[in-house]
Amino acid sequence: MPAMLLTQAASGLSPSQITVFLVELAVMLGLARVLGEVCRRFTLPQVIGEIAAGVVLGQTILGQFMPETFAWLYPAEGEVAIGLEGMVTLSATLLLFVVGLEVDLSTVWRQGKAALLVTAVGIVLPFTFGFLLAYGLPDFLGVGPRGEQAPLPFAIFMGIAMSITALPVIAKVLIDLNMAKSDLGMLVISSAMLNDLVGWLGFAVVLALLPAAAVVASGDGAGEVVEAVKQAVNGGADDAGLGVWWTVTLTVAFVVGMLTVGRWLCHKAVVRVQAHWAWPGGVLSFVFFVALLCAAATERIGVHSILGAFIAGVAIGDSHHLRERTRDVIHQFVMNIFAPLFFASIGLRLNFVADFNLPLVVTVLVIAASGKLVGSYAGAKLAGLSHRESWATGFGMTAQGAVGIILGQLALEAGLIDTDLMIAIVIMALTTSVMAGPAMQRVLQSKRKLRLIDTLTERHVLMTPAARSAEQAIHELSERAADLTGIDAEAIHRAVMERERIMHTGLPHGLAVPHARLDDLPKPCVVVGRSREGVDFDSPDGEPARLIALLLTPTSQPSTQIELLSDFAQTFDRPFVRTRAMSVETTTEFLAMLNQATATSDMITHDDETLGMR
Amino acid sequence: MPAMLLTQAASGLSPSQITVFLVELAVMLGLARVLGEVCRRFTLPQVIGEIAAGVVLGQTILGQFMPETFAWLYPAEGEVAIGLEGMVTLSATLLLFVVGLEVDLSTVWRQGKAALLVTAVGIVLPFTFGFLLAYGLPDFLGVGPRGEQAPLPFAIFMGIAMSITALPVIAKVLIDLNMAKSDLGMLVISSAMLNDLVGWLGFAVVLALLPAAAVVASGDGAGEVVEAVKQAVNGGADDAGLGVWWTVTLTVAFVVGMLTVGRWLCHKAVVRVQAHWAWPGGVLSFVFFVALLCAAATERIGVHSILGAFIAGVAIGDSHHLRERTRDVIHQFVMNIFAPLFFASIGLRLNFVADFNLPLVVTVLVIAASGKLVGSYAGAKLAGLSHRESWATGFGMTAQGAVGIILGQLALEAGLIDTDLMIAIVIMALTTSVMAGPAMQRVLQSKRKLRLIDTLTERHVLMTPAARSAEQAIHELSERAADLTGIDAEAIHRAVMERERIMHTGLPHGLAVPHARLDDLPKPCVVVGRSREGVDFDSPDGEPARLIALLLTPTSQPSTQIELLSDFAQTFDRPFVRTRAMSVETTTEFLAMLNQATATSDMITHDDETLGMR
Repeated sequence: MPAMLLTQAASGLSPSQITVFLVELAVMLGLARVLGEVCRRFTLPQVIGEIAAGVVLGQTILGQFMPETFAWLYPAEGEVAIGLEGMVTLSATLLLFVVGLEVDLSTVWRQGKAALLVTAVGIVLPFTFGFLLAYGLPDFLGVGPRGEQAPLPFAIFMGIAMSITALPVIAKVLIDLNMAKSDLGMLVISSAMLNDLVGWLGFAVVLALLPAAAVVASGDGAGEVVEAVKQAVNGGADDAGLGVWWTVTLTVAFVVGMLTVGRWLCHKAVVRVQAHWAWPGGVLSFVFFVALLCAAATERIGVHSILGAFIAGVAIGDSHHLRERTRDVIHQFVMNIFAPLFFASIGLRLNFVADFNLPLVVTVLVIAASGKLVGSYAGAKLAGLSHRESWATGFGMTAQGAVGIILGQLALEAGLIDTDLMIAIVIMALTTSVMAGPAMQRVLQSKRKLRLIDTLTERHVLMTPAARSAEQAIHELSERAADLTGIDAEAIHRAVMERERIMHTGLPHGLAVPHARLDDLPKPCVVVGRSREGVDFDSPDGEPARLIALLLTPTSQPSTQIELLSDFAQTFDRPFVRTRAMSVETTTEFLAMLNQATATSDMITHDDETLGMR
Repeated sequence: MPAMLLTQAASGLSPSQITVFLVELAVMLGLARVLGEVCRRFTLPQVIGEIAAGVVLGQTILGQFMPETFAWLYPAEGEVAIGLEGMVTLSATLLLFVVGLEVDLSTVWRQGKAALLVTAVGIVLPFTFGFLLAYGLPDFLGVGPRGEQAPLPFAIFMGIAMSITALPVIAKVLIDLNMAKSDLGMLVISSAMLNDLVGWLGFAVVLALLPAAAVVASGDGAGEVVEAVKQAVNGGADDAGLGVWWTVTLTVAFVVGMLTVGRWLCHKAVVRVQAHWAWPGGVLSFVFFVALLCAAATERIGVHSILGAFIAGVAIGDSHHLRERTRDVIHQFVMNIFAPLFFASIGLRLNFVADFNLPLVVTVLVIAASGKLVGSYAGAKLAGLSHRESWATGFGMTAQGAVGIILGQLALEAGLIDTDLMIAIVIMALTTSVMAGPAMQRVLQSKRKLRLIDTLTERHVLMTPAARSAEQAIHELSERAADLTGIDAEAIHRAVMERERIMHTGLPHGLAVPHARLDDLPKPCVVVGRSREGVDFDSPDGEPARLIALLLTPTSQPSTQIELLSDFAQTFDRPFVRTRAMSVETTTEFLAMLNQATATSDMITHDDETLGMR
């Protein structure tokens, strides 16, 4: 059957293409993770590292210094480029689906008027700024070839780009500040959800309003761009465009339908699938089926597939029947495999050096940040929040994060904006995301919860202290602490023993927490000792202490001691964590165990079912 | 920057292409799941349903009856075809990576001589059959255009294809028979692992042995096939082929290196990543990075990317530091999203009606099954196993499952075999997989463990019985059982009460299991009642029964009663399962809860850590 084989061979990727495809994915994934971890170390959002990976691998650095390697690894056209494009499209779709899963409509509902006010005023102000600027000074901003033909959609887009808020970034910031479940936290999250929804719908309108056949005649190759754009608007060469009003009508019908009937159907279907299909495989397949189908639907309507995926996420995520374990599998996989690919791909084709335009970057940043900050502040104040809370809400809402970047990318692809503006939007989105957390923290005078794991390295763990008594153990740990801090070991030992003489610091289940506050300590220092034999710390249940944490904190940070103490006690409160802690062999394994135990303890507080049902 | 935009537009997929891409993925995923669930209902392996989805959507059915829709949804060439090809390549790579993760080298080591014997004799016999047949009758078997030029590789391939064993299928069968941890089960699993390893290495040799430039001149389009083949062997047009001996040497070096130094390095790296990176995201990224890189390496060497992914899985999977939760996320996602896409894609391009060749199908089936059965039996016998156990081992090892199909697909793509033979291999692999379980079961006279969930539908659950006493509850449940079985309610009630009078069947924690064996019952019937008020069943801890299971079993199946009873007691032994059971509202929700509880109880017995560390 030669014909058969031909089909197979014709659509097939050659081995060298497959090699490049696999290597480019591996390199993007690996570097995105490494740079993401670097960011995490400096408590910056991971997405910055992921985009930076694309900048390093893309035109800005690799393309500049090793153009041949760049052209081999990330060819601009051909089978490999199309394969990567397919993966990136799928990644963006799944990413927005996961963002949608996090939206909880009932929370939005409960916040009601306040969320509505923060969202409305918070959108109107920066939208107006962006709109007016784009309408007045399109060339300064960097209008794209297609945007020139369509000043209105361009201006609306800029308005939206200035007024978006990133739900995932906000959620992460609030969790870090231990505020996710506070009234203020819920208000900010609800407003961000509503904001997301409005922003995406607005963007759908922008796409629908774009003229079907813009004609641009500037520079070579522009004709092809126009062709591509034309096709894009017409939904392919094989069918006529739907027209603006059809697109808008169908989009609204789709969104309303999915959030009412669709939501109800998903809810029913999820229960049935979980009752009768393999678990959790059945519900995983079902959820992806719906996400892909909704994405295809909106793509067909003429707005982007991403909107459909987002709405599918909202509709399905709202079902309380969707178990935590299913969400967890989807979330982990998408956020750690697909999301880094998407963000790295954004940096790939942009040249952050050649196309960097400082006045533009500053303008976009100032307008977006100030408009959103003042608008959301005003909304919160109108809703009756205090001065301080209103500012905190304002700062929280400025974070643009991933969503702003995705919108920019879509606008760039649609020819609405040019690369200068895209770079300005990326920098603005990242800067506002970095600032939101610290700013809220400062305004509320609250702070990040300090975790035990953040204070430890391999050198802070003593696996086999020789000590046979509490005093000996404290002596050994103090010597290590002295090595690490440069403070005199005797001084540490004396301060700790002084506290110990008032009452021994043994806790039940073989834990002990000798501690002291020291004047000349610049930051907290914890040394953990693990003794297999155990040391008597006079604990309430009489058990000898096997896990001993020496907690040294600066006198100037009065609350740090209690934070570390409670984190230590909570983490090792679970029997299997203690068992694991006793069984590991090396200090690195000890840290791995603790890292994992800390991550899971967050999850368990978040949802008890996680512990139970799997 | 028109140049910039051109790059964006040139490599981009048009909206209508994205729509098709998303729809084809959604449809494959959805149908594969639905047909997979149908198979599961009939206790057939799910992979059959997944391949059937491809047959329905492919040339055999959709292409036959709705050729235009088929051509739109699954175009043979162009951007969409390449995008799908990229996804399928990635899916196959990740699938084999997961299969590799399941290989536990130390288990293989411990089974030592016996596993070696079963594998060796079990391979030699069917290999010889396949090899001789292919060498003697290549045209009858259906040699491909490239296989004609290379009778030796073709014959070696047929030998391997006849002697492969599918690890995932075997593992599933043994778990179903509750034998995975028995000596016999361990032997079969170890032998299957060893078999996999040998098979893949042998296939690498086949690919390496293929002549670099086969010239075929039969029919139109064959020239292009040859071109494609040539490129495939040369590793692309841009570089010369590595040559057979280089390929073999590098492959062996890669495998040995990865299983020794690579394994050790992965082991070290996994601990470090888990200690210092975000958990579990960091280790997820790391694991995929290694998998993709190894896959690219073997693809570059000239053997398939799949081998590299498999070996990467073996190297990483062996690390006991890789936590169960990480494995679970990878396993669930790959097996439920990527694997169905891969298997459905196999059926897509084959025509199971037009290219069905009965004599060939029968020949392949008989040779593969008999060779493997007799060979493995002989090996087990030589290793000192009993007559019966040896037969069981033999039947277990015949299952070819997914691995046989993947090998066939690769050989088809390489032009080594034609579509007739491919179809015969697919049918043989599926048939042996279906037979392996029942055959082992029959030989060992053991049986599948009956699970409570398998006996229940919505009609078998009573959410709010009105009963206030044990006798009333039994009466109510008996009436429902009578409806469902057609047996007289009075007779049931009498039989159950007779047992109850000897001693009440209340268990601790609010459970009760009234039961009876009935002569005229064709199959077990369970009716579960959930009473929020509780009914006194005289339980040891004095708690009223809130979950009451009426267990009716045929007298002819003496062990069924105790199986159902223990499954019920074990499932509801966990407090959170009971809590959930009391809180659900509908019978469907009750089944969903039970389905999930059953799945997790398997997991917990499998690894206690799953319960603990997350």
